[in-house]
Formats: sequence, structure tokens, C-alpha cells
Amino acid sequence: MPATMTAAKKTTRTSVALNGVDTPTLLATINVVGGQPDLAKFQFRATSRWVSGTHSQSTMHGFFGAGGEHQHVAAYKASGDHPTVLCGADAGPTPVEWLLHALASCITAGIANIAAARGIKLKKVESTIEGDIDLRGILGLSKDVRNGYQGIKVTFEIDGDASPEQLEQIVMQSKARSAVFDCLTNGVPVSIGVKTPALA
Amino acid sequence: MPATMTAAKKTTRTSVALNGVDTPTLLATINVVGGQPDLAKFQFRATSRWVSGTHSQSTMHGFFGAGGEHQHVAAYKASGDHPTVLCGADAGPTPVEWLLHALASCITAGIANIAAARGIKLKKVESTIEGDIDLRGILGLSKDVRNGYQGIKVTFEIDGDASPEQLEQIVMQSKARSAVFDCLTNGVPVSIGVKTPALA
Repeated sequence: MPATMTAAKKTTRTSVALNGVDTPTLLATINVVGGQPDLAKFQFRATSRWVSGTHSQSTMHGFFGAGGEHQHVAAYKASGDHPTVLCGADAGPTPVEWLLHALASCITAGIANIAAARGIKLKKVESTIEGDIDLRGILGLSKDVRNGYQGIKVTFEIDGDASPEQLEQIVMQSKARSAVFDCLTNGVPVSIGVKTPALA
Repeated sequence: MPATMTAAKKTTRTSVALNGVDTPTLLATINVVGGQPDLAKFQFRATSRWVSGTHSQSTMHGFFGAGGEHQHVAAYKASGDHPTVLCGADAGPTPVEWLLHALASCITAGIANIAAARGIKLKKVESTIEGDIDLRGILGLSKDVRNGYQGIKVTFEIDGDASPEQLEQIVMQSKARSAVFDCLTNGVPVSIGVKTPALA
């Protein structure tokens, strides 16, 4: 953490911690970044290695942001695989299920932050995420069927010390500020390069 | 697994298992689905619950496909959180890192399947995935900055018993058939609903 962002911790105490969110520090951090936009430039990374069959494992450890390099408290690892019905070993969730987890975790994190900033204590946030996909796309059986999900449906159950309207507005504000929701609904440019032994 | 897909296991033995992929069963499965397109309709799901602060945990267990309900061999669980520099508890990778894992695991699984179908033995598949994001979007500091990644860059290192050109073609064919690559680059319709105690 750069000194500027650390120092901000002690400058603003107009709000209180809520929902496990250190609201004063969060709001101070936003203020600091507002004054130094370069601090907002982040790069997140994963490395992945093939294990066997459709099973691979990723590691998420280091990232850049707030002007410097950081590391998570642990080198987080996660597997991906195809299920047995699709001839995989089911050594982990499918890649497309990981998209659902990414979406839920992003909007849920935003809900907690936004509720805290609005002084609303949350009691429960749960969600179910469903993604419909026609595998004729990825199996190469139809050129009229896309490879990805036809659609994703998320249903949040939220309870807290606020009116139903206020609670719904928190979810909708989190959606409006969600990085993963933006990536999934609007798309992201993805470039893919390949290194082979002869070209390395 | 429906009887039709199980029965297919014994009908085609024109290719051999390779790279940990049961190629005969995979190709037979594709043939079965080609004849019964309804088997290609899948629904993947996750459930998520807020833990504290920006930390949430998802469970990925049941899914529908190939004409019936299935369960993974385990109820896979995963956390998401914001890092400490963004006032989270760093109890897991960030939601946007999970997108990188989803992308890597999808294309890597496809590489193994496609190489096996082409009779090419793989020695190594590794990748690094980098996503650049300007957090002024999600922090509400600029209306000109998107919430999600500006771009994602994937670099594969691949080695196997084939020419560099053949190895590169496998990666590119996997990209062309990747569900996650399609979702991330072309976008997916996402609907979000909210249930509050009064409306439940």
C-alpha cells in the first residue's frame, strides 16, 4: 500500500465501520484515488498450468495497483475441469461456473460496500446464479449456436435494516458499479498469444 | 449421464486416449449429441452467500445437462474478496481475478481435447493472464472510465509432439470454440432480480 493510501486512514472519521466494511478507510481511499488517478490503475493476473485431460490449475498471487506491486496473503489456487458427463475428470468446477462465481462475488462485495457507505446494516445477502448454454456451439455441431451462455440469471435475497426499496436500490447500485457485470455484459478485448519451443 | 451417452462409450474405438482425454468417448459423445440436440442444453449454477465485508463464498454443485440433473463429485466452494489495499480482508481472489481463471481453464481444457482429437501428445500447457483495469470506474470517480477490464492479455506456452504451427493452431482452435472467451469478448445478457423480506 503506498504511503498516501495508508495515511488516508486517519484523515476521515465521518462514518463508521459497518457490515465488516471499514467505511471510513474505504471512503478516504476513494478520496485519495480521486486526487491521484494513477493510483487507480490496477493489473490483476493469474497463471495457469495444464494438469491432465481437461483439468488445469490457476494461481492468483501478485497484482499491481495503487502505484506498486502487491501479493495476496496467500498464493490462491483453483482448479477447472469438465464434468464426467462431458468426459472430464470433474476435478473442479467448470470454467463457465467460475464465471458465475465471479459475477456473484463482485456484486455481493459491492452490496456490502454500498450498504456500509449508506449506513445500512445488512443481515443477509444470498444469491443464486444460473447460466443457460447450448453445447452444440463448443462441440462444433451448429454454426448458429454461440459458444457461450445464452443468458445468465441472478436472483439476490437481501435483508437488512432498511426498506425493501432501499435494499433493492443497493443491489442495483452495485450492479451499476460492478466490474464483472460490465465485463460479462459489454465484453472485453482479449488478446491471445502463443509461445512454442521453436519460437520461444 | 443418460443411457444414450453411456452406451456411446462402447461404439467408437477409432481413436485412442491421449493427454488424459478419453478421446473415443469424447468423439462418441459429440456424435450422440449431434443426433439428439436436446442433450446439448445445459444449465450451470452457483449459489453465493455474503460472509462479511467484501468476502463472499460460492458453492458450485448441481447442474442440468444431457437430459438430466447432475452433481459434481463434491460441492465445490470458493471465496471472493477485495484485497487489503482496497479495504477488503483478502480472504480470497478478487472477483475480476476469477474471470482470468475462468478464461485460462476454458481454453486450456479445449487445448487438451483438440490435441487429443488430432492425435497430438501434449507435454506442457501453461499460461499467464493479465487484466488491466482502471478503478476510477467502479469507485465512481469518472464517468468516462468503464467498470470492467480495459483489456485482457493471455500468453500460452505450449509444447508437444507437433510442429510449432500445429501447436499454435490447437490454441487458436480452442479459442474459437471457447465458451468463456465468447462470453468475455462478445458479452452475455445478464438479468438481476431482488427478493427482499417484504416482497418474498
